[in-house]
Amino acid sequence: MRRAISARQDATGMDITSRCTLGDPNKLPEGVPQPARMPYVSDKHPRQTLEVINLLRKHRELCDVVLVVGAKKIYAHRVILSACSPYFRAMFTGELAESRQTEVVIRDIDERAMELLIDFAYTSQVTVEEGNVQTLLPAACLLQLAEIQEACCEFLKRQLDPSNCLGIRAFADTHSCRELLRIADKFTQHNFQEVMESEEFMLLPANQLIDIISSDELNVRSEEQVFNAVMAWVKYSIQERRPQLPQVLQHVRLPLLSPKFLVGTVGSDPLIKSDEECRDLVDEAKNYLLLPQERPLMQGPRTRPRKPIRCGEVLFAVGGWCSGDCHFQC
Amino acid sequence: MRRAISARQDATGMDITSRCTLGDPNKLPEGVPQPARMPYVSDKHPRQTLEVINLLRKHRELCDVVLVVGAKKIYAHRVILSACSPYFRAMFTGELAESRQTEVVIRDIDERAMELLIDFAYTSQVTVEEGNVQTLLPAACLLQLAEIQEACCEFLKRQLDPSNCLGIRAFADTHSCRELLRIADKFTQHNFQEVMESEEFMLLPANQLIDIISSDELNVRSEEQVFNAVMAWVKYSIQERRPQLPQVLQHVRLPLLSPKFLVGTVGSDPLIKSDEECRDLVDEAKNYLLLPQERPLMQGPRTRPRKPIRCGEVLFAVGGWCSGDCHFQC
Repeated sequence: MRRAISARQDATGMDITSRCTLGDPNKLPEGVPQPARMPYVSDKHPRQTLEVINLLRKHRELCDVVLVVGAKKIYAHRVILSACSPYFRAMFTGELAESRQTEVVIRDIDERAMELLIDFAYTSQVTVEEGNVQTLLPAACLLQLAEIQEACCEFLKRQLDPSNCLGIRAFADTHSCRELLRIADKFTQHNFQEVMESEEFMLLPANQLIDIISSDELNVRSEEQVFNAVMAWVKYSIQERRPQLPQVLQHVRLPLLSPKFLVGTVGSDPLIKSDEECRDLVDEAKNYLLLPQERPLMQGPRTRPRKPIRCGEVLFAVGGWCSGDCHFQC
Repeated sequence: MRRAISARQDATGMDITSRCTLGDPNKLPEGVPQPARMPYVSDKHPRQTLEVINLLRKHRELCDVVLVVGAKKIYAHRVILSACSPYFRAMFTGELAESRQTEVVIRDIDERAMELLIDFAYTSQVTVEEGNVQTLLPAACLLQLAEIQEACCEFLKRQLDPSNCLGIRAFADTHSCRELLRIADKFTQHNFQEVMESEEFMLLPANQLIDIISSDELNVRSEEQVFNAVMAWVKYSIQERRPQLPQVLQHVRLPLLSPKFLVGTVGSDPLIKSDEECRDLVDEAKNYLLLPQERPLMQGPRTRPRKPIRCGEVLFAVGGWCSGDCHFQC
């Protein structure tokens, strides 16, 4: 079988004539020599390429754009920024004036966050910290750097605590981080007792308070907790929030309270007594409790029991008896 | 313990105040809260970035150089070419005129090879074939793309065969591929009998023939093979090579031949008989064979036995005797 490369010399030196076939004769159909091929894929090439481009950037070589962010000037290569961020791709490859300017002013992005994002574009690395996550995530959203958005959300998930879950929940909502919003929401529901004692809870706007307390998954042992949470929230800023009480109280499931609590605490509260709509809600609950036989006809959102998912809380009842003939055997 | 992000509202919406500490209290020195950090490294980022840059190239977006190679025009990004090839780095970041030109004419590189190398720079992939290896390797050498050079050498190693090993050896030598040269050399030494029957062997220049036959590792059963190879090589182009015979014959170890072959074949060959220097070599061998007791004083490069590495050729001599009382036992 003939193989690659034979030596033929001429006056100028080596002339190599290709006449090769595949090395393995088992792969060849009889009498039909196949040309030899070796596909080669480099695993390290993309990373090495990016490393050298980062060195070029550090030496400001072949940089074709300067981003002006606040007081900072960041030298970069349009092709790298465009490859990593759809925002920059639109800016540099479109018809915008920026596609022709060497200096481009970037507004509405924190300068330190921008630096971190550009560093990531060139190094694949970023360190998310409590001190930068609140500027990094919005900046990543603006530049459409999905991987950094995800890293920021992952960081915030790990930071979830009853003292901050409402802040993280709102932050996730603002920046449309669905998965983080879902996790923070679940965390808030599950740790409601601690959350309602936090300062964050007292600072909630009415619509967010309603979002939380209207959930079937709220983890409470009794509806008294929800009522107490609502009253504490109203009293935290009573002048401003008193008018919002009826709207919020609609989402407390008063029919699920005990008659004693409903009469002694809810019905006798001056804030509730003095408001028509609140009194209607208390009446609805009283009627529900008074007429057990008519409850099937009185079902509504406020009579639905909560179904909290309580991880690991299982009660075992173990019983047995001694028949009298059990004794120690040695 | 306090944690990241608390919700504080103002008129414009959410204002988030950072006040976080590490999640795991075991990691904290008592009473000294550590700021939370999450280093993030992306594995996929470099490859994805290069993929998008390759798309940009295909759409000729943000390309800042056109390589003119033969009849081809190749659009590219200076920063990518510079990152992959020290040749381009020197061209684009130095003081050369090319660093300011948009069109750069590249000479001495095959246009198809150049296309493959640029493709590799953007895709990390190349297919080495019998039809391109001879232009690809020199082009990779010129552009200093070490990874492609290695891939080409690997391809040629797999193609080694007695019919082409001399061509590959010379090609490796020309392009300073040391490892390939070493492997091709070893292959040639090991398969000398088949190699000496090939057309390539007949076409060798004298200096390369000498390189091969002067090695101690030449895999021959007797020195007759080496002598026959040299004579066949001379007779292939007798007019041109006859004057080179003494120079080549110096490297045949005539003292290791049998007296019969030395007298009957070597000494009686008209080409050898008619040349003074060749006769001297034959005389030297005859003296060595005639005076066994003086051999220790006559040692030289031509009396050194070859030490071929013959894989798997081991002779076992197994002996024993029967004492007479051995018989079959059933």
